[in-house]
Amino acid sequence: MKIGVLGTGMVGEAIGTKLLELGHEVKLGSRSAGNEKALAWVKKNPVYADFASQGTFAEAGAFGMMVFNCVMGRASLDVLTAIGADNLKGKILIDISNPLDFSRGMPPSLLVCNTDSLGEQIQRAFPEAKVVKTLNTMTANLMVNPALLAEDHTVFVSGNDAEAKTTVTALLKEGFGWKSVIDLGDISTARGTEMVLPLWVSLMGKLQTPLFNFKIVM
Amino acid sequence: MKIGVLGTGMVGEAIGTKLLELGHEVKLGSRSAGNEKALAWVKKNPVYADFASQGTFAEAGAFGMMVFNCVMGRASLDVLTAIGADNLKGKILIDISNPLDFSRGMPPSLLVCNTDSLGEQIQRAFPEAKVVKTLNTMTANLMVNPALLAEDHTVFVSGNDAEAKTTVTALLKEGFGWKSVIDLGDISTARGTEMVLPLWVSLMGKLQTPLFNFKIVM
Repeated sequence: MKIGVLGTGMVGEAIGTKLLELGHEVKLGSRSAGNEKALAWVKKNPVYADFASQGTFAEAGAFGMMVFNCVMGRASLDVLTAIGADNLKGKILIDISNPLDFSRGMPPSLLVCNTDSLGEQIQRAFPEAKVVKTLNTMTANLMVNPALLAEDHTVFVSGNDAEAKTTVTALLKEGFGWKSVIDLGDISTARGTEMVLPLWVSLMGKLQTPLFNFKIVM
Repeated sequence: MKIGVLGTGMVGEAIGTKLLELGHEVKLGSRSAGNEKALAWVKKNPVYADFASQGTFAEAGAFGMMVFNCVMGRASLDVLTAIGADNLKGKILIDISNPLDFSRGMPPSLLVCNTDSLGEQIQRAFPEAKVVKTLNTMTANLMVNPALLAEDHTVFVSGNDAEAKTTVTALLKEGFGWKSVIDLGDISTARGTEMVLPLWVSLMGKLQTPLFNFKIVM
């Protein structure tokens, strides 16, 4: 499948590379075509030369039948607006971003929370996209390689479109290797996963590694 | 040890009973002395007749060398104010409450979050109490009986006083049976554990039971 991946940070690179390995065609999007990190990513994957490309956010959004939002939370709405509602219409838009606010220093607070979430803001701004919030509660390497940890752990899924969540869950399980995927409900449940970030940040400081995750034990 | 437990709900009862079983003297506090639920709790524990008592919040607060706050988040500051700073001075105040706001219906939002927390509000209001936030991320039965779940899971501790956290951690481990206790840092890290509540509420709806918890996997 043709997939657009927005963002050239750790998350965008990890997701993009994993999707190539799974046989997808991936266009990595950034603010301007020819972005240094995006070009480096394309070059790093010579075996997938015909399947890896880069371009502007708008080009990556138009290219993908499915789109991964891997840009910073505070930039997400602007980036998606640059892509335009027509380019996202009817597509699954997987939102991995978190609305972290570093403007007050460390630890970050959230730009939106409690009675709203970035996932909901994106769904409201692009009502014809099928927004699925997932993977935003762990570090990039774990998203595409959950087996890095010693035992199973959990990834959450939120979204209004049941079929889209089924597709994303299949990709998470069969593609990325997740065993425990919990569908929390509609996109408003993204509040819960975004609001986990302050605990995640404290834990990273305490454990001195980002290589950990939450597991739901019953 | 003489311990005051504030609140006659599920949390107060569970904590109070467990403390009796551990050999402590417990006074269960409520708004008015002779509260029906508090009297019922005393009667339910005839074997500990000499160790279980009830009274007003102020009486329970004055009684305890250590105090557990198990009242609802929105009532916590008022209840502690009724007890008075002098009655809390120098004492460990274990805060289990969450600032849940049900006034907008279900699911609840939080009365305070992101750049502040109820734990911090309590510490600021009672600077000479040693506030330790803990146990607020799970249902009451699990707080005092973590072995109810099939495998180990995690409880978090936040507070400014290292010695108080050491005392509380020992009680959690040796008294309540916890194996995994993570000290997140100072009381500001209570933001993280209080902000987990929206995810917890979604999970309870999805899993159809409150008998689950978070485990940190590395």
